[in-house]
Amino acid sequence: MPASPIRKLAPFADSAKKNGKKVLHLNIGQPDIETPEVMLNAIKNIDFKVWAYTPSQGNASYREKLTSYYNNLNYNLSPDNILITTGGSEAITIAMQTCLNPGDEIIIPEPFYANYNGFACMADIQVKPILSSIENGFALPAISEFEKVIGPRTKAIAICSPNNPTGYLYSRKEIEDLKELCLQHDLFLFSDEAYRDFCYDGNEFISPMHLDGLEEHAIVFDTVSKRYSACGARLGCLITKNKEILEAGLKFAQARLSPPAVAQIAAEAAVDTPKSYFDNVIAEYTKRRNILVEGLNKIPGVYCPTPGGAFYVVAKLPIDNADKFCQWMLEEFSYKNNTVMMAPATGFYGTVGQGEQEVRMAYVLHQEDLEQALECIEKGLEIYPGRTEA
Amino acid sequence: MPASPIRKLAPFADSAKKNGKKVLHLNIGQPDIETPEVMLNAIKNIDFKVWAYTPSQGNASYREKLTSYYNNLNYNLSPDNILITTGGSEAITIAMQTCLNPGDEIIIPEPFYANYNGFACMADIQVKPILSSIENGFALPAISEFEKVIGPRTKAIAICSPNNPTGYLYSRKEIEDLKELCLQHDLFLFSDEAYRDFCYDGNEFISPMHLDGLEEHAIVFDTVSKRYSACGARLGCLITKNKEILEAGLKFAQARLSPPAVAQIAAEAAVDTPKSYFDNVIAEYTKRRNILVEGLNKIPGVYCPTPGGAFYVVAKLPIDNADKFCQWMLEEFSYKNNTVMMAPATGFYGTVGQGEQEVRMAYVLHQEDLEQALECIEKGLEIYPGRTEA
Repeated sequence: MPASPIRKLAPFADSAKKNGKKVLHLNIGQPDIETPEVMLNAIKNIDFKVWAYTPSQGNASYREKLTSYYNNLNYNLSPDNILITTGGSEAITIAMQTCLNPGDEIIIPEPFYANYNGFACMADIQVKPILSSIENGFALPAISEFEKVIGPRTKAIAICSPNNPTGYLYSRKEIEDLKELCLQHDLFLFSDEAYRDFCYDGNEFISPMHLDGLEEHAIVFDTVSKRYSACGARLGCLITKNKEILEAGLKFAQARLSPPAVAQIAAEAAVDTPKSYFDNVIAEYTKRRNILVEGLNKIPGVYCPTPGGAFYVVAKLPIDNADKFCQWMLEEFSYKNNTVMMAPATGFYGTVGQGEQEVRMAYVLHQEDLEQALECIEKGLEIYPGRTEA
Repeated sequence: MPASPIRKLAPFADSAKKNGKKVLHLNIGQPDIETPEVMLNAIKNIDFKVWAYTPSQGNASYREKLTSYYNNLNYNLSPDNILITTGGSEAITIAMQTCLNPGDEIIIPEPFYANYNGFACMADIQVKPILSSIENGFALPAISEFEKVIGPRTKAIAICSPNNPTGYLYSRKEIEDLKELCLQHDLFLFSDEAYRDFCYDGNEFISPMHLDGLEEHAIVFDTVSKRYSACGARLGCLITKNKEILEAGLKFAQARLSPPAVAQIAAEAAVDTPKSYFDNVIAEYTKRRNILVEGLNKIPGVYCPTPGGAFYVVAKLPIDNADKFCQWMLEEFSYKNNTVMMAPATGFYGTVGQGEQEVRMAYVLHQEDLEQALECIEKGLEIYPGRTEA
């Protein structure tokens, strides 16, 4: 597996810090939001004497509690539809291993979460990227574009909404179009819902689970990482009404024995997180998104669509090459002793050569740091030697 | 992946319990020993506000502390030699994915931990079993037996010492013989050391890490599951001095982001578990092993070697078929309202037809329950319809 462009930048960030610069990290999806107290208290209040295996599919009590959580979202599940996994990552791995065979293909609109490539590589699956473009805010590509690449080995389409890296929130119409396509070609529809709880401006979140007729085709990946700012819990789940996939997935789950035990106790408690917690988080992220998007669009030559969810934006910059620019910002540039670390968007495209003028930024910093970061980007672009006209 | 014989028995155990029988579980490796207090207290005393990702290779402080632990065992490591994994299971998966290519072969003395098959299957690796026999206590098969199956696709040998399922503890001579073999044929030597802390009768534990010259070939799998009775922590590690493997392994670790965070905090604290904890555990398991092994060998037709470590035995019974016998014990038999659940050894052999007269028993029960279990097995064998002469 190739190292991602973000990881290649890490040594440059380290030496920037060694040289006394403050590095503003817009490159990572680690939220600074506090984990809900009810979740942290559940950790502190554990009362077992033996830190034992849990069932491979997860604790029964947790799966029941999660069922109530999802049924409040109208997913219409029973606990049997939920396989608890070690992070959302494992849900994706298990889905690839159970729904596809080695040599099969999965279509993913690009840019997409870079680790999909790694998971596909492990399962010997080919990713077929379809271009979604920044000009229309990274909306779903036309269905005809999917049809062009569907072949005999195509077994699934994967989406992530709200999207990492673009923040785009798919509309009901887009999910319905995908449903028709998947039913027509008998494809699994993978729905990565890690950012479901982060929808802004009152926009409605639509899951394939909300549509009738996709019971055998829809596979949802979820995680507690972003919802509760609990990335270190390593707890997610795979949700489907397809019994065959659940049975096959359980075998993979049994091989690794069980998901983490303390995380399940904490996540079960976290389902009772008060609504006010999420209201505050949404308000905070909305404010940050607005600062970042407005600030970016004010910089000459920069274009950044306003995403409907998640906590990422992808912006187009007047630069020759995002990898070079991001490295230059760390290595050569500082303004008021600050610099910014961003993720070159090239790492999120499956097609070589795409995204060379784009960067992903995560708005996981406070307002003041975001404003400093914007100032840095503006000043950096003014003197970057590889600047182009937008 | 096929379901294991143990899992096939689960419904019969459930209905035995529904029918009011007490089922004595000798089938699983979940210890009843309490987790060290210092480890549980570390969970209760967590003081972070954001349950964040840790580095993909694990927390630096934990890897440093682990280094001191291993160097007390004369492994001569630096923290860079340790990749923290989500359970020992993930260490095995990562090793198979990095050290071997699809279609490659790994030699494993049988009987072996059944999930090796699952992990090999995921990585598209062929397991080549070599028979170790109950008659000589499941000692390492002759090196000539390995040589018979080594071919151009053979890339590794895997051992587990003390062994699951047999409890056999490899001698220094056996590890040295394996070293010569691996160097001669340039094979990786995988050493699963999940049960390292459970060696009895003053026997010395020998790891490939103790031998000079294996730096590029030895890959150790470890876990906190058994050492601290913390199976639910899902925390292990891969240890090697081979830099190429560490770099490749890190890429797989990066794809799944990070190992569990709370478990790392707890496991770091657990390194300070007082020696008295282990002394008590060793004394308890030694007592249980002696009760079980002596009790089994007193039953007419039963043969059980005395293992040097772990908390399992494999015994040979005067029966036609272990799968049938284990199911019969649950379904048809009880004595004083008790019955016993055992693991048919067939699930631990890679060769079809092997182990049909053998069962694995885990001595994870208190003395009284072990004695009741022995009584049940004796009475059961007396009337089992498929009884054979030993």
